[in-house]
Amino acid sequence: MPVETIQWHKGRIKLVDQTLLPNKFKHIYCDTVKSIWEAIKNLRVRGAPAIGIAGALGVVLGIQDSKARGYVQFKKRLEQVILYLSSSRPTAVNLFWALDRMRVCCMKYRNLPINRIKTELLDEAQKIIKEDKNICRNIGKNGAKLIKDGDVILTHCNAGGLATADYGTALGVIFYANEQGKKIRVYADETRPLLQGARLTTWELMQAGIDVTLICDNMAGSLMKEGKINCVIVGADRIASNGDTANKIGTYSLAVLAKAHKVPFYVAAPISTFDMKIKSGEQIPIEQRSSEEVTNLSGKRIAPKNVSVYNPAFDVTPAKFISAIITECGIIKKPDKEKIIERKVKL
Amino acid sequence: MPVETIQWHKGRIKLVDQTLLPNKFKHIYCDTVKSIWEAIKNLRVRGAPAIGIAGALGVVLGIQDSKARGYVQFKKRLEQVILYLSSSRPTAVNLFWALDRMRVCCMKYRNLPINRIKTELLDEAQKIIKEDKNICRNIGKNGAKLIKDGDVILTHCNAGGLATADYGTALGVIFYANEQGKKIRVYADETRPLLQGARLTTWELMQAGIDVTLICDNMAGSLMKEGKINCVIVGADRIASNGDTANKIGTYSLAVLAKAHKVPFYVAAPISTFDMKIKSGEQIPIEQRSSEEVTNLSGKRIAPKNVSVYNPAFDVTPAKFISAIITECGIIKKPDKEKIIERKVKL
Repeated sequence: MPVETIQWHKGRIKLVDQTLLPNKFKHIYCDTVKSIWEAIKNLRVRGAPAIGIAGALGVVLGIQDSKARGYVQFKKRLEQVILYLSSSRPTAVNLFWALDRMRVCCMKYRNLPINRIKTELLDEAQKIIKEDKNICRNIGKNGAKLIKDGDVILTHCNAGGLATADYGTALGVIFYANEQGKKIRVYADETRPLLQGARLTTWELMQAGIDVTLICDNMAGSLMKEGKINCVIVGADRIASNGDTANKIGTYSLAVLAKAHKVPFYVAAPISTFDMKIKSGEQIPIEQRSSEEVTNLSGKRIAPKNVSVYNPAFDVTPAKFISAIITECGIIKKPDKEKIIERKVKL
Repeated sequence: MPVETIQWHKGRIKLVDQTLLPNKFKHIYCDTVKSIWEAIKNLRVRGAPAIGIAGALGVVLGIQDSKARGYVQFKKRLEQVILYLSSSRPTAVNLFWALDRMRVCCMKYRNLPINRIKTELLDEAQKIIKEDKNICRNIGKNGAKLIKDGDVILTHCNAGGLATADYGTALGVIFYANEQGKKIRVYADETRPLLQGARLTTWELMQAGIDVTLICDNMAGSLMKEGKINCVIVGADRIASNGDTANKIGTYSLAVLAKAHKVPFYVAAPISTFDMKIKSGEQIPIEQRSSEEVTNLSGKRIAPKNVSVYNPAFDVTPAKFISAIITECGIIKKPDKEKIIERKVKL
């Protein structure tokens, strides 16, 4: 059974502290908006869908003690909470999507008593979790059609159960194919600087009994050259309306390498990852993170003091490098604006 | 002034322990063949030319206490030492080249008294060091012709002074261009798993006052896409007669990315790196190293216990991805067998 990454538990948010994996499997409890903000910021919870859930539950945390007597006052508090949570990962589109859904829910029930609105908001957050579980299973089911028995799959970062409520997007495809009885082998990029691949992806796949081999990011090209990779599957943090995809730094390099070696390159992501307001990847802002993530490892310095560091969290892979985007509503082959709109409209 | 990486010092080998950099700059002394074998194996001394020097000095260590009365007995001891040292880095062609040179030297002076042969062997090793210094400066001088004022250069691993006697091959080009007054900026790949870029290349460039920015290996493609890289320069561990080049794992990925972005890709290496006995890169054996190099960092585990790991030390970049090979004898543009033979013949 997949691990429950994040859930509502007796008035608090209960989540797996992913910064401690794989050495320690430990839950933490957040009972203030500040503590869930910190958990998002410091990647205790990470992965686009899981961040969305954390945001929605964060809104519930933020308003549950509200003493507001009227809707206007209550809504003001809600907006403050949303604004604050937005700043935890300013490039995570699922976060904004989930926060927006909480806002819409609040507005929908504006005529109910405040306590009823609070209940509806908790229900909405729970609905997001339940939907996420269904979405991931459907992504897995759709994506598994692309996987043949015996395939060797390369993945980057962690788009697994830990990145979602419990099943994963890119790893959901692998889990589903595995459940179908297909024999699969996986190479997992360690994914510098924060090593989500080494720490989380290998752990999840090993838990599921799937054959996984860890590599450094710079080894992927060499494996492709030797013909050892049948396809690449990654998740996504944001997808522009033309199919350009922002995902963990290193994804773009993999996509270029995959194209050069004629290896199919798949992105697995829920429909909520699409940002139809932006035309192309050029409009996606790239979060720059602290240099210490690169220069310090396990608390020890691995580079000279005062060295300059470039540490973008993401890169953008143009749609032309993507063989297909796998969603809960089906597979979008050779994605472009028309096909994406068509798929969204079918929702 | 560049650092003296490795030298003969009062009957012992004195070398910078590169596994301690950049946190500690410390010399160690090897007075047995076993200790220099260990230093090579565990990368206290690394980089193709420096390994060659370590091998040559290792032979001097190994025979200096020989009580052999005749040449045959002495030569037998020398061959034992050479065989043992060969096993320290079985894919390092410069090691074999240097060991072979020591063998030839021994044979040349076979008619001298044993003590005189010992002196000649030490002289030969010193000659290799002196030649290396000249070679690196000539590589730098030749390569600097390819560098324009204001260029931004990407490099991988450490092909600097620490990889040679004191000046470097790929970094030699950068040092020389810098000495010419050209304004240069460098991006250094950290180079997983052993982080030679983060630990050594940044340190050397900062010592020389050159503007360097550290990146993770998976960020290079993204920088090229943004047009931020003017050229890539790397070293080489072995070059086949057709120009295929074995170098630190990750080099091949960089070469593919460079080609995709029309960024010139240069290899800087001494003529001794060419292995004219092999036709192509397919014949170059790839050293597989221990999984702990990937799973443990600064003494802490970063991946689940018992996870499978693939950890090749090198990959092979086909000649078609290489814009030019920079040697001490000149630049070989678009290298192929004919041009390489021509250059070697001119030696």
